[in-house]
Amino acid sequence: MPNVNPDRLLTDLDALRAIGAQGTGVVRPAFSAKDMEARRWLARKFADAGLETTIDGVGNVFGRSRRAGPALLVGSHSDTQPTGGWLDGALGVVYALEVVRALADDPATAQLPVDAISFQDEESRFVGCLGSRSFVGSLSPEQEAAAIDRDGVTLADALAGAGLAATPRLRGDPARHCGFLEAHIEQGPQLEDDAKRIGVVTTIVGVRGLRIIFRGQQNHAGTTMMARRRDAAAALFDYASAVNREFPRIAAARSVWTMGRVQVVPNATSIVPGYAELDLQFRDADDTVLDAMEALAERLVAEANRQSGVRLELQRARAPIAPTRMDGTLRRHLAAAAERHAPGQWLEMPSGAFHDAGIVSARLPAAMLFIPSIGGISHDFAEDSRRDDIVLGCRVLADAAASILGSDLRG
Amino acid sequence: MPNVNPDRLLTDLDALRAIGAQGTGVVRPAFSAKDMEARRWLARKFADAGLETTIDGVGNVFGRSRRAGPALLVGSHSDTQPTGGWLDGALGVVYALEVVRALADDPATAQLPVDAISFQDEESRFVGCLGSRSFVGSLSPEQEAAAIDRDGVTLADALAGAGLAATPRLRGDPARHCGFLEAHIEQGPQLEDDAKRIGVVTTIVGVRGLRIIFRGQQNHAGTTMMARRRDAAAALFDYASAVNREFPRIAAARSVWTMGRVQVVPNATSIVPGYAELDLQFRDADDTVLDAMEALAERLVAEANRQSGVRLELQRARAPIAPTRMDGTLRRHLAAAAERHAPGQWLEMPSGAFHDAGIVSARLPAAMLFIPSIGGISHDFAEDSRRDDIVLGCRVLADAAASILGSDLRG
Repeated sequence: MPNVNPDRLLTDLDALRAIGAQGTGVVRPAFSAKDMEARRWLARKFADAGLETTIDGVGNVFGRSRRAGPALLVGSHSDTQPTGGWLDGALGVVYALEVVRALADDPATAQLPVDAISFQDEESRFVGCLGSRSFVGSLSPEQEAAAIDRDGVTLADALAGAGLAATPRLRGDPARHCGFLEAHIEQGPQLEDDAKRIGVVTTIVGVRGLRIIFRGQQNHAGTTMMARRRDAAAALFDYASAVNREFPRIAAARSVWTMGRVQVVPNATSIVPGYAELDLQFRDADDTVLDAMEALAERLVAEANRQSGVRLELQRARAPIAPTRMDGTLRRHLAAAAERHAPGQWLEMPSGAFHDAGIVSARLPAAMLFIPSIGGISHDFAEDSRRDDIVLGCRVLADAAASILGSDLRG
Repeated sequence: MPNVNPDRLLTDLDALRAIGAQGTGVVRPAFSAKDMEARRWLARKFADAGLETTIDGVGNVFGRSRRAGPALLVGSHSDTQPTGGWLDGALGVVYALEVVRALADDPATAQLPVDAISFQDEESRFVGCLGSRSFVGSLSPEQEAAAIDRDGVTLADALAGAGLAATPRLRGDPARHCGFLEAHIEQGPQLEDDAKRIGVVTTIVGVRGLRIIFRGQQNHAGTTMMARRRDAAAALFDYASAVNREFPRIAAARSVWTMGRVQVVPNATSIVPGYAELDLQFRDADDTVLDAMEALAERLVAEANRQSGVRLELQRARAPIAPTRMDGTLRRHLAAAAERHAPGQWLEMPSGAFHDAGIVSARLPAAMLFIPSIGGISHDFAEDSRRDDIVLGCRVLADAAASILGSDLRG
């Protein structure tokens, strides 16, 4: 069995945390000086572990085993949110490093080929999952040309600033890899609520986004009588309330929907608003549930248009993300390893958040493992996990990697 | 009867419109170069009409009759919204000029003292009704020190920039004036809807403002299940919907309420909002109706606090404006003049918008006259009134001024 070294693992996680640390959190957005410093540090660690290491033209750090393939690819991302937690994707990247070392340390597994990767910009400074999209070949030139961060910096400028403008980009070779494993913190409270220590991901939930536009008539808030008003905000309030009243009737047990963005124009206390926008995002592991939610959102728009002087228009705000089922064989290896290391203390669960594994799964069998987030907190300086859970997660991952590579999966 | 000269009146309105004209609209915010140019133009016109004229230290243009008092004060304001209409308060200022001239032209009224005024900053660049507040002595040093426009310019800087820093401020002398008459466009559609040509204002409606604060918990929109959420925006949507559902049960026929400003934090499509604010403003001519609306808003906050994980807090956002009844004697003179010039074509109505007359009425008997706004449009480049309504309004105002000054009102 691979011999995960807890001290080595936790020491490296702490060393990575120190790069961009602010209080208990980490500030290491993609292509920032600290992000690139972390990637160079990872490259040295990958090389020290015996991997042939490169930082490619989008900043992906790839460590290639010197063993013959097909290899198992293991990793996640080391960039963070603008005010990020210290684990998030960094956990899965240091896990990959430790899995490589743990397998190498045991003569029984030393010949098994594991490649390690830290993808770039999973956190959407420019393009969500930029690095894995580039790796699987699904990043379009149009998407890249339009990529700009919230301060107006273009992706091209960020690449140039990081010294990557002339660096080749790595494209995953399907013949090289038999699968991809990603470990991550849960970023939610389910494991903690259920007193479990390991989650084996069944599906990365699908996400759809709608934008509802409300067009009324801007008016003076003193002289325009109620019967004459075509108040865009009033129509928005009623629509959003109706969504929250009606969606539970068709939602599945773990469906979620969010109306987190509201724009009211001119947004002045004393002016009847003539225009408003509402974003409605919803997620579920099942496309038929997503279809039902979208149909209900459309029906509520049609009903409002029959009743009100405000005109509602429904726009599909972005390309929907389909639910992504994790590979059954890889999941069974993860589940068996979880049962060996934490009998009865693991469960199968969907991922409500999106991950690089959702991108990679289009080209490779992919699966994911979660460890608990204390209080369910993530994307926040307060993000943390128990040290024994961190060590347990790495043991499960290393054991699963060995069993996958030791099985007939490599064909 | 005073002899209003339609050509002179319309020519002067057009000349004033040309100062700051943009297309069909006028851009003449308080203390801008165009506003001060307009005030100097008005001062010349007041002087040409025989008045002793000054521009005071807040920019009020005051023309004092050389006749013995008590005099009748007539006027409005010549500053505009950032994208204003050409009539608005400018109508009432040029009416005042024409009333002075029309009374002077007729030997029967030539001895009657009419003072004319254009107040400064009625439109709230710095302080709503700044000029009339200063004139009646209700502008506090604290209010003035805190006054800053939306571009960060302080009132003190604007006064200095307009060359007024060292100019004395005019305080109304109660012994000088027996009353104040203000004419204005209606800024709403009621006169047009009822096919009337003159409105005699009964009351300037009271305005109260509340701000509802919603405190929940910010969370990840993918990993936070619905049952766990404390979504500040969802609570806001429900509260605002409940206001629009419940308020009609207690509102009077001409009550209005507006929720024109919404803030959601962080206002991102994919984040469950932890904080939100909603402004609720309501207006009525009757304090008991305003009390009932405020009590209902409070009851809905209490009900929401019993039901939801989001904590609501109700703040009174600014000093309420009490309904202001116009002076009964002055109103009867306006009504009688309206009936003489437009028999059956006038009505009594409250003003839903606030006006300088609301400030002046605290110190002097005050009354207001409205002429129709085409389509009810105001504070917009499209603002307009029919030329025959403009002339009629001035005739009614001049006639009422003469009858007020010819009656025993002057004591």
